Formats: sequence, structure tokens, C-alpha cells
Amino acid sequence: MLRTHTCGELRLSKNGKKVTLCGWVQKSRDLGGMTFIDIRDRYGITQLVFNMETNAGLCSNARKIGREFVICATGIVKERSNKNFNIPTGEIEIVVQEFKVLNKSEVPPFTIEEETDGGEELRMKYRYLDLRRNPVKKNIILRYEMAREVRKYLDLKEFIEIETPVLIKSTPEGARDFVVPSRLKAGEFYALPQSPQTFKQLLMISGFDKYFQLVKCFRDEDFRADRQPEFTQIDCEMSFVERDDILETFEGLAKHLFKKIRDFDYKDAFPRLPYNEALEKYGTDKPDTRFEMLIQDITELAKGKGFKVFDSVEYIGGICVKGGAEYSRKKLDALTDFVRKPQIGATGLVYVKLNNDGTVKSSVDKFFNREELDKWTGNMEGENGDILLVLAGDRKKTLYALSKLRLEMGKQLGLMDKNTFTPLWVVDFPLLEWDDESQRYHAMHHPFTSAIKDDFHLFKTDPGKIRANAYDLVINGVEIGGGSIRIHDKQKQAEMFRLLGFSPEEAENQFGFLMNAFKYGAPPHGGIAFGFDRWVTLFGGTDSIRDYIAFPKNTAGRDVMIDTPSVLSDEQLRELSLKVVNK
Amino acid sequence: MLRTHTCGELRLSKNGKKVTLCGWVQKSRDLGGMTFIDIRDRYGITQLVFNMETNAGLCSNARKIGREFVICATGIVKERSNKNFNIPTGEIEIVVQEFKVLNKSEVPPFTIEEETDGGEELRMKYRYLDLRRNPVKKNIILRYEMAREVRKYLDLKEFIEIETPVLIKSTPEGARDFVVPSRLKAGEFYALPQSPQTFKQLLMISGFDKYFQLVKCFRDEDFRADRQPEFTQIDCEMSFVERDDILETFEGLAKHLFKKIRDFDYKDAFPRLPYNEALEKYGTDKPDTRFEMLIQDITELAKGKGFKVFDSVEYIGGICVKGGAEYSRKKLDALTDFVRKPQIGATGLVYVKLNNDGTVKSSVDKFFNREELDKWTGNMEGENGDILLVLAGDRKKTLYALSKLRLEMGKQLGLMDKNTFTPLWVVDFPLLEWDDESQRYHAMHHPFTSAIKDDFHLFKTDPGKIRANAYDLVINGVEIGGGSIRIHDKQKQAEMFRLLGFSPEEAENQFGFLMNAFKYGAPPHGGIAFGFDRWVTLFGGTDSIRDYIAFPKNTAGRDVMIDTPSVLSDEQLRELSLKVVNK
Repeated sequence: MLRTHTCGELRLSKNGKKVTLCGWVQKSRDLGGMTFIDIRDRYGITQLVFNMETNAGLCSNARKIGREFVICATGIVKERSNKNFNIPTGEIEIVVQEFKVLNKSEVPPFTIEEETDGGEELRMKYRYLDLRRNPVKKNIILRYEMAREVRKYLDLKEFIEIETPVLIKSTPEGARDFVVPSRLKAGEFYALPQSPQTFKQLLMISGFDKYFQLVKCFRDEDFRADRQPEFTQIDCEMSFVERDDILETFEGLAKHLFKKIRDFDYKDAFPRLPYNEALEKYGTDKPDTRFEMLIQDITELAKGKGFKVFDSVEYIGGICVKGGAEYSRKKLDALTDFVRKPQIGATGLVYVKLNNDGTVKSSVDKFFNREELDKWTGNMEGENGDILLVLAGDRKKTLYALSKLRLEMGKQLGLMDKNTFTPLWVVDFPLLEWDDESQRYHAMHHPFTSAIKDDFHLFKTDPGKIRANAYDLVINGVEIGGGSIRIHDKQKQAEMFRLLGFSPEEAENQFGFLMNAFKYGAPPHGGIAFGFDRWVTLFGGTDSIRDYIAFPKNTAGRDVMIDTPSVLSDEQLRELSLKVVNK
Repeated sequence: MLRTHTCGELRLSKNGKKVTLCGWVQKSRDLGGMTFIDIRDRYGITQLVFNMETNAGLCSNARKIGREFVICATGIVKERSNKNFNIPTGEIEIVVQEFKVLNKSEVPPFTIEEETDGGEELRMKYRYLDLRRNPVKKNIILRYEMAREVRKYLDLKEFIEIETPVLIKSTPEGARDFVVPSRLKAGEFYALPQSPQTFKQLLMISGFDKYFQLVKCFRDEDFRADRQPEFTQIDCEMSFVERDDILETFEGLAKHLFKKIRDFDYKDAFPRLPYNEALEKYGTDKPDTRFEMLIQDITELAKGKGFKVFDSVEYIGGICVKGGAEYSRKKLDALTDFVRKPQIGATGLVYVKLNNDGTVKSSVDKFFNREELDKWTGNMEGENGDILLVLAGDRKKTLYALSKLRLEMGKQLGLMDKNTFTPLWVVDFPLLEWDDESQRYHAMHHPFTSAIKDDFHLFKTDPGKIRANAYDLVINGVEIGGGSIRIHDKQKQAEMFRLLGFSPEEAENQFGFLMNAFKYGAPPHGGIAFGFDRWVTLFGGTDSIRDYIAFPKNTAGRDVMIDTPSVLSDEQLRELSLKVVNK
């Protein structure tokens, strides 16, 4: 090694020792007869010192070194007179005896500091420089540590990591596949996996009863801020299990990560919330339970009292915001604007102020008397000083709007501390969703999800009411993972495909290998998959998944650093028997 | 869990305990009043016993169970009267009290046994059943254990695993890329990585001074028996290192794996063999050093002695085979046929038998007298009872043919024990290879490989003689990994691209981002990549890489189980702005 130590490890105990460090120049200061250079590597920063009096030549040379130069310096560890207790190496410095410039650097396009002056696009283009910055570097290290702990835990539990193929078969179900043209078989294509779902089920049929894989998956979607075309899953499957075995096993994984990564001993069992209850209380199947502010249904109390806006709607519900009685007109107008945004979709906001003096002031005083409003207050557990915020309309859409309003209020009131984590399982999802457009059922999870046994009788009578044996792990309002007990019976799987509108030929063509495998002794099995990028982002405490990926794509799916996607040569296209059309 | 124990864990110590096992029926035997069923899972096999006298109903039901049925059986652990010491559970059996068929099985298309009656194609089609067979299952578990130990070792050495992107940019250098059409940007494509080479170099520039990744790589080649279109690499890179630092670090990894996987304490340093010496002594840069039988150059001794076949050639060389003096005419004819095969390429075989009685008999007695032949014998260290096998021709081709002949003799003489491992480093490769067809140099390793410092002066005068700062790890004649110290200087990299026939525009277009990154403080760095599939195969002791991949492709790049590649729908093609031509 060109170095004897890293820039993060020297302490006072090494006083007087001769050492060699390699790294990048973080900054350089000339103070009269002295020059100080902070040298940085992955492990930390150490101060180098050069003395004009004792070694003028060396010191002059050091003064020529710019930021981000790569240098190798040899010298003696010395106790600093002016100690910096903010960094672990701050009690020492290196009195340099000789140094070498290993490589020069032009002035970087943005500053390599905690906070940088570089904009998003510039930092993505020079991602290799952005990765030098402490906050980004820390994220990548956090990602590695989480992956390592996931593997450690699952290995202890006798899981085996098995690689499944990346070049697989395209299936029209679900999101769009990325495809890969075959050169050897003109006109045919592989697809990149959206998940290894069918392969992990085949592994259960093979008898590998505890499988996992940290695996890249791919979805060709129209990109959103928090979506990447390639993402990483912690993919898991077990045989001879029922739902609670899966929940316990992976609650154990989550607790292991809480302990190892966030140093938090999570002793209690994670709450389990049925889907319907989540929807009623939080307006969403991904509830953020760091704060209460539950949604209350006041339809029966508020409908049919002569207020036309309410009388025509399916649902009326609201939340009680502590201390909100003092909100100004302006603030209430802003909240009204918020719920009216197209992505929230409410038509208006009704408020009821429960003033500290015991009076009540609402935007619907004309239609509801004090007694009626008191009933709302009772239902919503309001107290003097609070405000009730009420929305009305279509049940599903209104609950959605209320969920967004609830989160907005949580944010405004500082109830969403990044260092508090409230995990829970959401269970008992519907198996099927009716799709008006295609006039058929869609699988809410995927077509391999089994129903809860008690609901088997509904297959013939009311399929929309069947509950799936499925579950999501939600932490702080983020869906971290989801899974289900799978169908392992050929007949049941065929019936499911039929319900989903597959003809027997389509089912055979797309999933024939799985149906076939079910003939030869498929064990009962189930599993779960976690969005690894999301989980790391949650534990890292910032918002963008991109911050936790070494080389992410931008929101248009482009890697601006290597400038791809890009055009192929004519010869490449010819070899693939392809022509680009409508370009 | 549906079970209390696995089928591999019960021992005599559990005598009398009530247990529940789940698994597949391996086989079933009816012996008069008793029925025995062997139940199998990932962990082993346990014998279930049913007694017609004590429970006729249960026993009759058990007799209806076929092979590969999935069952769940509850009963009492009992000491066996007739113990089977060949399996860990062989001292006990389970006296079944109740059982359930969890799933039936049709008769599998081949037997699920150590040795199967299924042919390759059938086993690939029903890979999920093949994976139930012990030898295949063991391979997959071995693969996992090796991956785990690789990660453990590298983590201890402070390496960080960082995921690099799968959707990258196509570059014409090297093998053919698999490509992925972009839907959002019509006419543009991503490519799948042949290796994360440039990304790991960028990570070094980012300051992550010890990187690794177990990563899928892709090459669209015309497939051969031991090649897969997707394969797994252990990809590694380090900063602030010289060659020996890399060799020591990864020799450590190899030794760790020898110890953990093969229980072999490899104490000595791995030999380091210069490329030229490997070629001279073994005829190949991937020498199998489990046995000696070194190639000897006898050009000077044998040329110009009036034997026309030899007089016109560039090179004459041979090997001495111990005990070969007794070879029959027939055997020598077969060896002659062997070296004449097109893939070996020799024109004929000359032999010299050193008989046990001291006489010498050769196929060139007419042209060489005893004294001359004795000189060959001296040079090749032949002894009474041996045979010298001599080939002549173009130096490169003849050394190649000799390397194949040497391996053939090693095989015939049983010198290639699968449980003996002789690792070595091959070093000092040529940096460049002259290609007659394109009339230019190619990079022997890749364009980012640096030259050995002593050879820098040859860049201007004799580039073909420059030695690369590159190295391969070879074990038992298999190239397990290779790497190099990289160029980290922008000027040197530009010069390299120029030597390789890139115009400045081409270099900029394909590797501009890397050249650009070199401007901002690139540290000295180097690395290595191991073929993980190959390494597992070597440690597993069988020949085919496919045996160690859960779901491999066949030699035509097809997954016959899921039947892919396959055609896309017209709509998919339209969305991708693609048309299939010359189909």
C-alpha cells in the first residue's frame, strides 16, 4: 500500500510515529510561516502541516497544491496545540517531511463540502465528485451496512441466497417490461425481471424452503421523482408456513435492522392493522402512525341536515387538529387551496373552531347549530383550542384527500420526526380490484396471491369481497415491503387466472411452466419482497431514493454522467434484425 | 410453521418425542404389516413408519401416497431396530400417528435420485425437479456458501459492496453487448454491462478505496458449452495500491475460501509465473500445475539435421511421459489422431521410446542417430521406461498443441485429481496484441490496463513488447480471475486509446466520462475480477458451469423451462418504436 494509515485513524497514541497518508486535498491555509493542508479519504480528514522556517522548499511546494489534488505525504504525528474536537483526528497533525502529488485536479465544477453549491443536474453529471461529499458517501456506506445486516440475519435463520436469471420472459401482466432482443433468434426477446416472483416459487417447489436474494429488478414506467427504472429488492420466500410465520420472521429482520443500523431496541410486536381499518382511520393503506389525528366518519351526523353540499355526498369525514382554533383566515385559505389541488382532489374544506373560551365558530354555522356541531366534536374527540377539518364527497376520494390533509397537518405541526419509527403490518387486503375500464377484476397484489380460507366461499358469489392472505410492512407511511401466502394448488391457480380474465391459452402461454410445476408436489409457501432503496432512504432520513444509489438515473430514465440511453451503430441493429421506426 | 423439525435433524436424543415433519416422499416400501416412507426436504431424509396391525386405516392411506407427494406427518420418534448409519437420521424413525397430503404429484418425468434417468434437455425443462436431486441441490448450496464467505472476507478487509447500474451504455470495444431499447427515447438503447469496469474506476475516483460487488454481467457471444449469456463476477478494486498489494489481498481471499469451503489450509505463497515462462513450459497462460511434464524446447537440437519436416519449422518441442515406453502402436496412433484434430492443429507426432532395456526406438530413427536422440532425452530429462512426444511447426500453434497433448496425457495418467488444487499467479502479460486482420494493436486485457514502469520507453519504439501490469489467478488450468493496475493519468489513457486505433472523437464519445473524471484527482488504483461461476464449479469438482446455476440457459442461450427468448406483442414493439426485419 502507498499509505501506512488512513486519514481517519490517527490518534494521540501515535504521537511521534512516522506515517504516510494518501488522499485528496480538502482545503489548504497559509498562515504566515505555516501551511496547513486537510487531507481527506473515505475514513476521515487529517491535518498536514508544513513549516516555512524549517523547510522552505517543501512548504513552497505545498503552497502550489490545489483542492482535490491527490497527494501522498510522509511525516511525523504530532500533538496539536490548537485541538479540533469536532473530528476524531483533531488532536493530532502530521509534520510533513516529504510529499508527492499523485495526481492533479482541475477546479471541480462544484464544491466538495457538506453543503455544495452544485445543482442537481451538475451533481448528477459529475456523480463521481458528488460521491466524494460526506453526506452522499455516508448514504452509500449505510446502504452497504444494511445489505450486510440483511444477509447476516437471513443466514442465521437458514435462508439461502440464490441468484435467479436476469434474462427472462416478457409477460403482459403488471407494469411494462424492459426487453432485450436476441441476436441468435431474430425477432425474439428476453425481458428483464420486474421481480423474481415465479422463480422463487419454483425454488419452493424445488425444496429450497428458505430463499432470499438482494436482486436488481426493472420496470419500464413513466418515471416519477422517487422511481428508478432499476431498483433493488430484498426478495424472500419460505415453504411450510402460514401468514404469522412470515410476519414473525421478517418482523425479526426489521428489528435486527432497527438495532444494528439505528441502534433502536424495538421490543414490542408490530401492530397489525386490517386494510379496511387503515383506510377508515388514516385514509390510506400506508398509514403514518407516528401521530394520531385519526380520521372520523361523521356522515351520519352531518348528512341530511339541509346543507346541500353534504346531503348529496356518499361520505363526510374529518380530523381534529390540536391547537388549530387559532388558525387565521389566511392559513385556512391556504389549507383550502391545498385540499383543492388536483392531486388531492377535494372540492372544499369545512372547519369548526373550538375556541379556548368555549365558543364554536365554523364555516357552516348557517346550516348546523351548536348542538349538531357538538356531536361532531364529540365524535372527533375535539377539545377547546382545537379545530375540526372536514371534507365530503365520494368515500374513496375523500378518504384519500383526508389522508393527504392529515399528513400535511402532521408536517406543519412537526409530528413526523425522522428519528421516530412506527412500523406496522397492514393485513387483509382485498384479493381483487374491479376495473371499470376493462370491466374485469385485477389482482391487487399479483395473480399468485391466495385468499384467506374463510373467504373461499365468496369465489362463486362475491369475488370483490374476498380478502387476500397478503400483508405489507409500513413504516412512517412508507410501504417498505409486501407479500402473501401463495396459491400452491393447480386448480386454484387456474381459477384465479380465469377470474382475472385470462383465457386458458393465455394462462398456459405465460405461466404454463409454473402451472406445470404445480403438478409435481408444490408445498404450501409464501413470501415477501422489500424495496431496499426505499428502506435505506427511510433509515438514512432524507427524502430522495436517488441519494442512496451510487449511479442513479434522472427522472427521465437517463444517466447523464455516461450519457445513456444512446443510439446504436447500424451494424448492431442489423445484427439484431431490428429497425427503428417512427423516430 | 407447519413442521416442528426438518427431515435432517432428528437424532436418538429425541427418542419418544412427538414431532411433525413436512417434505416430499422419496420412496415408499410395503413390508407385510408395515409401510415405510422416506420423507425428504432440503436438510435430509427421515423414515416414517406405519403399522397395519395397530392402525390399519392410517397404514392403508399411507400406501396410496406416491413419490414426490408433499406430506405433513405427526408421530413419535423411535429408535430403529435396523439402523442405517449412512445417513445422519438413520438411527431413528417416526411412528406416524396422523398425516396429511399437502399436495399430490404426478409421476415425475425422471427419477429424483442421486443418479437420474433424465437426459440433459429433459432435466433443463423441468429444472425445478432437477434441483430436488441431491447433487444439484448441493451445488446451489455450495454456491451460496462461497458467496457468503467472499463477502465475509472482503468485509473484514474493509471493502464495501456497491451496486453499479445494469442499464448502461453500449461500447463497441470488447465482446458484443446485449442492448435494451428505451421506450421514452425512441431509437435509443441501454446496454447490459459486460463488467462494471468503468464504474468501479469511477468509484475509486470518488474515494471508495476498497470496492467489491458480486454482480451479474452479460455477453452476447455465440455460446459454448461453458459459457452463459449472463454470469456472475466477484468484481473488486482498490486505491493507493501496487500490484503486490492486490495479489496479497486476493491471495488471502483464495486461501480463506480454500479453508472454509474445502477445509484446506493453504500456507505457502502462490507461485508467480511470468506469462512468457508459462507459455514456454506449459504452452498456455492457464497452466495446470497439478503435474510437471513440462514442455522442453529442442529446436536447436533437432533442427538442421536433415529431417525436412523439422528443418522448415520455427519451433520443435516435446514432453516426456513417464512410463510411456510401453505404449502400443495403437495407442500412439490414437495420440497422433488426437494432436491432428482441427481444434489441436498439429500435423503429426514424433515419438522416442526410452525402453527399459536401455534401447531407444523412435519414429525418426532414419534421421537421428542414438547420440542425437540422447541429447533430446537429456534435455527433456527422460529415463528408461519413458516416452518423448515431440511436435513441430509454428511456435505459437505448436506450443498450443503441446499444451493440449500435455493435458491429455495428464488426464490419461490420472494426474489431475479433482481434490488437489494448485493455484498460481500468471504475471507480466503483454499489454498489446497485434491483430493482422485490422492491422492494429488490441488490448490483451482491456484499454484501462497500465504498463509496467520499466517498459514505458517501449511505447514509442516497440509497443508489442510492453508488459502489462496485469495478473491472472489460475487454479488447476482454469483462469479464475484476472486484473491489472489501471491507468489513472489522462495523458496516458489518451495515448493508450491512440495506440488501440481510437480517434480522439471515438475515445471521447465512448469513454469521455472516464477521461473527464481523470481530470479531477484520480488516485492510483487497480483491481481484479473473478469468474464466480467458474470458481464454484472448480470447487464443486464437476465440469459444467450450468450445474452450479439455479436456472441456466442452454448452449443456444435459451431457457427451455420458461421458453425464452420469445416474441413480443405488436403493441410492445410499437411502443418501443421497433420493427423486426429479415426475420
